[in-house]
Amino acid sequence: MKTRALMIGFGSVGRALARMICGKRERLAGLGFDFQLVGVFTRTKGSLVDPDGLDLEKMLSDVEAHEKFTGPSTDMTPLEACRTLDYDVLIELSTLQIEGRGEPAASHIRAALSRGKNAVTANKGPVAFAYPELGALAEKNGCKFLFESTVMDGVPVINLVRRCMKGNRITGFSGILNSTTNYILTRMEEGTSLADATAEAQRAGIAEADPRNDIDGWDAAAKVSVLARVLMGADVTPKDVDRTGIRDVTPEKIREAAARGKKCKLVCCGYLEGGAVRTSVRVEELPEDDILARLSAFDSGICIESDLMVPNYIVQKDGNPGDTAFGVLEDMLSMM
Amino acid sequence: MKTRALMIGFGSVGRALARMICGKRERLAGLGFDFQLVGVFTRTKGSLVDPDGLDLEKMLSDVEAHEKFTGPSTDMTPLEACRTLDYDVLIELSTLQIEGRGEPAASHIRAALSRGKNAVTANKGPVAFAYPELGALAEKNGCKFLFESTVMDGVPVINLVRRCMKGNRITGFSGILNSTTNYILTRMEEGTSLADATAEAQRAGIAEADPRNDIDGWDAAAKVSVLARVLMGADVTPKDVDRTGIRDVTPEKIREAAARGKKCKLVCCGYLEGGAVRTSVRVEELPEDDILARLSAFDSGICIESDLMVPNYIVQKDGNPGDTAFGVLEDMLSMM
Repeated sequence: MKTRALMIGFGSVGRALARMICGKRERLAGLGFDFQLVGVFTRTKGSLVDPDGLDLEKMLSDVEAHEKFTGPSTDMTPLEACRTLDYDVLIELSTLQIEGRGEPAASHIRAALSRGKNAVTANKGPVAFAYPELGALAEKNGCKFLFESTVMDGVPVINLVRRCMKGNRITGFSGILNSTTNYILTRMEEGTSLADATAEAQRAGIAEADPRNDIDGWDAAAKVSVLARVLMGADVTPKDVDRTGIRDVTPEKIREAAARGKKCKLVCCGYLEGGAVRTSVRVEELPEDDILARLSAFDSGICIESDLMVPNYIVQKDGNPGDTAFGVLEDMLSMM
Repeated sequence: MKTRALMIGFGSVGRALARMICGKRERLAGLGFDFQLVGVFTRTKGSLVDPDGLDLEKMLSDVEAHEKFTGPSTDMTPLEACRTLDYDVLIELSTLQIEGRGEPAASHIRAALSRGKNAVTANKGPVAFAYPELGALAEKNGCKFLFESTVMDGVPVINLVRRCMKGNRITGFSGILNSTTNYILTRMEEGTSLADATAEAQRAGIAEADPRNDIDGWDAAAKVSVLARVLMGADVTPKDVDRTGIRDVTPEKIREAAARGKKCKLVCCGYLEGGAVRTSVRVEELPEDDILARLSAFDSGICIESDLMVPNYIVQKDGNPGDTAFGVLEDMLSMM
């Protein structure tokens, strides 16, 4: 059966997804998954629509060669596409907008779910700002809204709790969930200043041109919000998270902590406390033998605490956009 | 709806499961899970049958007080019970038998599945020795055979791959999966001899009276066999695993390794190599900053490698029989 998809965004994750699907067509066909892209909408590369299916290989090579699609671009808006095109699943891969409170991605997803169409996203915003509403809408209309790749790329965290920990109550989590700041802090351990480490991350294409979402902890807070909402049922937007970024960290502070056997890490937390869920994103000094303390650069990891098990950790070594793409693909496979 | 269960074994895991179900009756009822135990069979505590449901609290207090059930013991055999009693799910919690090639547990499970009844086990033997057959039998008869708790207690490993990594191909795994030897090696790092550390583990109730399954790597080999079969489709019994235990390890060897920045660990591996799956259980010297090297005493952990993601680790801190019980419970909840 064909899975007809509409994709918003064609950045590193979208391209990794397209490459993965092209590279594994046969395996995916064996699972009954026959992917067809009926539309792709981007801010800078153009937007294409074809009800008979776009050519993924051509899209990839065009973007690689000219950073743009070739062929006639549609003047439809992404929201119009979500509302009117004929598709089975919306793949929302636009970037996190804190000031816009998860918009326009949330509206794209709302439009799909309102029509009873599945949606999958790697964008934290719509979940962090609009989750209970979007989840309820999906349930009401008998479709699915999945978003494994919003936290720790596609490493199973959300799906792990939902699909493999039934009957258990999550009592807390703490994690290293933002790679850019973890990379910067790792470089600062070696004596580099925050400004230089940030510039380095930007040159390497890891940090955005405007690095505030990372440096000020907004990306991390959005992830905390996703986890607090989905794993613990709390009503927490990124703005409700007790958040400090890494702006006040200096190589000296990191050295002093190291002398005491500690590592400075930007830790993302959510804990049940007196019936309420308390959330935070802040630099903490972790003992050097803590599993989270040992995650360098692009590693990420989370400790999940629950009332029926001892704490379990999930750790990803050196994640990349391919992992995020896999999470999107897996969510689509779970929708079949 | 009632879940009518037949239980074989009532050791630490069976008791932890009974306590968990008694303690969370209300939550489980909210999930539609209404547990009723219609029979329990043990080697040393007696065996009880009651089609109207046994009293779990009384079983727990009787065993705590006298190490035996009270009330009229049945003279039915466990196999007869599997073949004739009226139940929905068999809970097989007997212990690993290497010489018996997973029997009698495999026969108990075969009897249940042959009647179209679900089976869940924490016993590695039936999976390690009889998996493709038992899995096919379950599929043919439209029932389920689940066994998350055979590896890393109930921490999601098998279910994680099956339920959350669809479309991905597992290319290898390596893990610290036997707690008894990991505890002994941890004590040996402090200078204790193998014999003394083993005796200590026995006194603490961690190691069996006959510790050969652990010391010689059989328990670990059975876990490797389960993972190689279920995650990688290999036809590997514990006897096929390239296996050396920890008998030849000395505190001196461990000290020498430490001087080179290495930790001696009993590592369980399965890797795709030239189209075949190579499996091993042996003491390896891991670099000190390897995540697996840092798992002490009762910690366990596994690294899962796949062709669509970077390696992911799952780590359990300080596991206990409650975690195994949770895995059994979760498998039952997944059967509903």
